[in-house]
Amino acid sequence: MAKGEKGKHSGEEKDRENGVLADATAYPTVEDDEEHGDDLRNPRFPGWFAEYSPLWPGQAHFLKIERVLFEGKSEYQHMMVLESTAYGKVFVLDGALQLTEKDECAYQEMITHLPLCSIPSPQKVLLIGGGDGGILREISRHSSVTQIDICEMDMMLIDVYREFFPEVAVGYDDPRVRLHVMDGGEFLRSAQGGAYDVIIVDAFDPIRPDHDIFGSPFFEMVAKTLREGGVMCIQAESLWFPSLNLPQLIHTFRNIFKGSVNYAWTPVPAFPSGVIGFLLCSTEGPDVDFTRPVNPLDHQNAANFFGVAKEPPKFYNAEIHSASFCLPSFARDCL
Amino acid sequence: MAKGEKGKHSGEEKDRENGVLADATAYPTVEDDEEHGDDLRNPRFPGWFAEYSPLWPGQAHFLKIERVLFEGKSEYQHMMVLESTAYGKVFVLDGALQLTEKDECAYQEMITHLPLCSIPSPQKVLLIGGGDGGILREISRHSSVTQIDICEMDMMLIDVYREFFPEVAVGYDDPRVRLHVMDGGEFLRSAQGGAYDVIIVDAFDPIRPDHDIFGSPFFEMVAKTLREGGVMCIQAESLWFPSLNLPQLIHTFRNIFKGSVNYAWTPVPAFPSGVIGFLLCSTEGPDVDFTRPVNPLDHQNAANFFGVAKEPPKFYNAEIHSASFCLPSFARDCL
Repeated sequence: MAKGEKGKHSGEEKDRENGVLADATAYPTVEDDEEHGDDLRNPRFPGWFAEYSPLWPGQAHFLKIERVLFEGKSEYQHMMVLESTAYGKVFVLDGALQLTEKDECAYQEMITHLPLCSIPSPQKVLLIGGGDGGILREISRHSSVTQIDICEMDMMLIDVYREFFPEVAVGYDDPRVRLHVMDGGEFLRSAQGGAYDVIIVDAFDPIRPDHDIFGSPFFEMVAKTLREGGVMCIQAESLWFPSLNLPQLIHTFRNIFKGSVNYAWTPVPAFPSGVIGFLLCSTEGPDVDFTRPVNPLDHQNAANFFGVAKEPPKFYNAEIHSASFCLPSFARDCL
Repeated sequence: MAKGEKGKHSGEEKDRENGVLADATAYPTVEDDEEHGDDLRNPRFPGWFAEYSPLWPGQAHFLKIERVLFEGKSEYQHMMVLESTAYGKVFVLDGALQLTEKDECAYQEMITHLPLCSIPSPQKVLLIGGGDGGILREISRHSSVTQIDICEMDMMLIDVYREFFPEVAVGYDDPRVRLHVMDGGEFLRSAQGGAYDVIIVDAFDPIRPDHDIFGSPFFEMVAKTLREGGVMCIQAESLWFPSLNLPQLIHTFRNIFKGSVNYAWTPVPAFPSGVIGFLLCSTEGPDVDFTRPVNPLDHQNAANFFGVAKEPPKFYNAEIHSASFCLPSFARDCL
């Protein structure tokens, strides 16, 4: 579950005067926005974690924190696991809320089943990012799948999720999973053309507004690595506070993937504005109508419906699949 | 747009030490929740408004405020109009965020068109609450409507909306509108049985968890005041953080209204958890399937599509009407 970097944290500047709980507010990552950031940082709210980002200026979501369960820094990033009162355990990456126990179901199930249920019998799936394991858990419900490759650069992130979020990281228990601890772009460069039915991109900010994705070969490599009529799904922010130029992005993706491109959204209450969007693209080949699931995830019929998950999906069903493509008029008219 | 009282504000205790902007944080209305409330109140964040409620404990939404445009107290309640950086102008009633310029379209359009588009040719409509005028503006788009009655107790609220939110309060300009400055229950007691095709209840907390609505005659009066096969729509909070027992409420409404009962939800980013729900009930008579709009609001065809509104709906369309009834599995299985 990746949601956009919000600036690097200032590790050296952090101030422990408010005790361990104050650390939960020590990473609002606001140095890119001095004016607003100071309001939130000084004075602090001990015992609260503040989700504040220059990408969504003028607002902040505060979560009451009972305990800091883990804090550490890998080669790549800073991590915290917080016990919140309203959302259960929360994972924070470089100050940005990534996942909460309460609502991870909505994000993980939708980013997985929107692409996998849109084509018949997907077999080979590649996940770039998604190191928490929740998307693996959801892919695991599909009995047609024979191979699940995941590229995750940060082994420490996987270990922290395994320790503190075992019901999310349970996805790694599926014997079809092959973990590649490496950069997704590097993996794609050496991947066989046309090898995958589905590629899910849940990596750290592949479409950040300040990234030059339009000149980048990343998505061209994704398209080449998909079979004809294969599909990609990637997180594409909130319609309420878009920092990306979505119409331009959709135009670019139509040129790169040459099949269908569509946009869906889903409620996720812990994320800014309470929703998150997804872009779905198919390559030239058999037509894909993302709005109509042809491969329903139906626990009445599927023999291996749970996979390594402990229970049926909490959020996803065929009706909400189609509904997620229904957009408000202000968005429908411009996308 | 009413969203649940959050305790009375403490007018006498308010502290102006942080200047006028600090007033924006002087009404987090937290005295019902001493432990968490103190964290948010002390120290203050000058220049930010905090949406914090014991109904949604453990979280708070902060909005950056540029100016306090109005602050006053009527016979009934305390009001503030704030200029926010992220949501435009914001109306705050007794510390609770009621409406923002950015997203009022989603709430007003859905609470209006879900009932009015579910039956053919609605003619007489009663609105209880909704004094801001936005629902009137949306009803105004329906050319079949011949009479719009509104019961709003607080004349000062109407005046403040007229001054600061003219594009919302424009609804009062419709010549079909008859304003009754009185309590909705009192109006219903003397209303003619079967008089209305649609009743929309946007009043202050008719279904607050601590209200004894199950023993209350309010909804029985609503049912009696609807014609056969008439419909009611009422705001019914967020599925993510329900403070009501929705299955029990639906059971009760089935007994009172004796027709269809259904639940819809819509994204509204400024509300807690980013969504809000609606309960729709029809009385015994012609069948009403709320999920399928039989009275489409289609600006290609309708002669009087805008009514007193200045532009077409920003949010509502027939697809999002049906989609709003598609619920996540965790809710679908228990409602």
